Amino acid sequence: MKIAILFGANSFEHEISIVSAIALKKVLKEELVYIFCDYHRSFYLVPADKITSKRFSSGEYKKDKKLSIKNGGFYHKTLVSEKKLEFDVLLNVIHGSDGEDGKIASLLDFFHISYIGPRNEASVISYNKLFTKMYANEFGVKTLNYEILQKNEPREINLIFPVIIKPLRLGSSIGISIVKDKDELDYALDVAFEFDNQVLIEPFVNKIKEYNLAGYKGGKYNFSIIEEPQKEEFLDFDKKYLDFSRTKKVNEAKLSDDMANKIREAFIKLYEPLFAGALIRCDFFVLDNEVYINEINPVPGSMANYLFSDFSSAIKDLAISLPKNIKIPKTYKYIHKIQSAKGK
Amino acid sequence: MKIAILFGANSFEHEISIVSAIALKKVLKEELVYIFCDYHRSFYLVPADKITSKRFSSGEYKKDKKLSIKNGGFYHKTLVSEKKLEFDVLLNVIHGSDGEDGKIASLLDFFHISYIGPRNEASVISYNKLFTKMYANEFGVKTLNYEILQKNEPREINLIFPVIIKPLRLGSSIGISIVKDKDELDYALDVAFEFDNQVLIEPFVNKIKEYNLAGYKGGKYNFSIIEEPQKEEFLDFDKKYLDFSRTKKVNEAKLSDDMANKIREAFIKLYEPLFAGALIRCDFFVLDNEVYINEINPVPGSMANYLFSDFSSAIKDLAISLPKNIKIPKTYKYIHKIQSAKGK
Repeated sequence: MKIAILFGANSFEHEISIVSAIALKKVLKEELVYIFCDYHRSFYLVPADKITSKRFSSGEYKKDKKLSIKNGGFYHKTLVSEKKLEFDVLLNVIHGSDGEDGKIASLLDFFHISYIGPRNEASVISYNKLFTKMYANEFGVKTLNYEILQKNEPREINLIFPVIIKPLRLGSSIGISIVKDKDELDYALDVAFEFDNQVLIEPFVNKIKEYNLAGYKGGKYNFSIIEEPQKEEFLDFDKKYLDFSRTKKVNEAKLSDDMANKIREAFIKLYEPLFAGALIRCDFFVLDNEVYINEINPVPGSMANYLFSDFSSAIKDLAISLPKNIKIPKTYKYIHKIQSAKGK
Repeated sequence: MKIAILFGANSFEHEISIVSAIALKKVLKEELVYIFCDYHRSFYLVPADKITSKRFSSGEYKKDKKLSIKNGGFYHKTLVSEKKLEFDVLLNVIHGSDGEDGKIASLLDFFHISYIGPRNEASVISYNKLFTKMYANEFGVKTLNYEILQKNEPREINLIFPVIIKPLRLGSSIGISIVKDKDELDYALDVAFEFDNQVLIEPFVNKIKEYNLAGYKGGKYNFSIIEEPQKEEFLDFDKKYLDFSRTKKVNEAKLSDDMANKIREAFIKLYEPLFAGALIRCDFFVLDNEVYINEINPVPGSMANYLFSDFSSAIKDLAISLPKNIKIPKTYKYIHKIQSAKGK
């Protein structure tokens, strides 16, 4: 199986996507082709042996083959014509906007390109933290209380401090602040509004238990181990992503079977059928023995490969279990009817 | 102002989109260019004076200039190079899948093309009838009760007959049946499952009052008249769309000021900020003096032009009030930091 890794794009998490793409080189045993989408949304075919962070930061990638996306796939120009880039399935590794907000899913579906990753609906629901809450509640998974503020609204909130302020639509801890009292609110809102015109405000529960579970449905459900993320990482973007070479240390959660099952049950409630075709990581809270969904990451950092014992097989399993689109008959039934009624 | 009309695409409502595009030729006073997307999702520049339904049903459009979509716009080949199609704003007139499910919105946003129409989030929320309900309830607009059935689930429902069965994601009455008792359920579900893997079931309220209101926010809110659609049209796709030349008869609703205001208030609750950039038509029910949202049409048939007194000005007003995307800094801050830390 030949897998295309699509990464980069016009996102605050552009650089994290490069980190993810590099990480996958080490863990995927399949033949890989790398498609880089730059900040300006031009596509390039980057040789797999030249995937280093410097290639992108220096602009050297611009010497690579330029690709265009159109019906059926990605194409590059040849002397006389153009050639389709061959691969069996594409893996969407673009984090944040473009990759997780549904634009890339839409492009790939529109142009009939087979891919692993969230479909458009799943992207929109998980990218917007309000929609995630609406969706989770609808399907019986608890969420924390919240308020929403618009950029141009009076900055009044009813939640009791401390609260946590988040841009409504980003991931990766960007623009997030913990606010201990009213005096700190303005600055935190200013920061969050840099990234979105809407912000989400939730109660900040100190020392809340956090558990991350990744998984997907291939032939059947395949779950990762449940991770208890290290607390100091929680809000620190720099620490989380600065060191490319760091081997991710996984802190497997010590949980009762009952609680582990509760977490997996919540995952299943959220996953199907919306997230079919994607390997996602759900970040849960546990409070008073109840499971709450904090965030659904439909394109998790490094694809959460470090949580799986055999990530390469997982991706192959998922690749052969992708959802199919409903076929639309290509007819002109009504127009023909009218024309014959008119005697044309 | 030069407006590009984008229509067609891979949708059960492909033909209705052609009808809409033809209708707009008569009501828009601006200079128009027509971009047809065929069932296979190839784009063509169709001369404005050759917009007849037969051009598409006969396949004659294939002789028109082929366009490709990429960064900045639509391009057609010239002898030596390629040329960008010039227009000020594009009007998305694709109904159903592609146009209303967010794929077209995503493409246009991805390629930096300015357009009137629902953005991706708005499309996903309004295209999926369950998401519409979740969203409306969240923002204080009532909806009818419902159940959802998956294609592979046992066909058991708890609602009391009669019920109405709808594919979860289509518009334009396609695949919809009224089911009077249990015996009719199976057939109606078979029909609906032709169009979607999920169906929505709602109580069917006979002689429920229906009111349609179109509008958008330009400089300020601009509302259409409130229409009371003619009942016999409710479920009949053929009747609704068969006759291209029919002049739409508008049946203005006779409502108290209080009720008309209630309907406009519900519209505003639903519209902002999600639908910014779009002219939408909301189809409401009124039951016991309460307003319920039935459906949000973010690309209404013929753009609901017949409900506005000056549709051409409305489109110009909207064109200069389009939402702006958050700017993402194009930097390699983190990678540069690491590289300098490593002494590279």
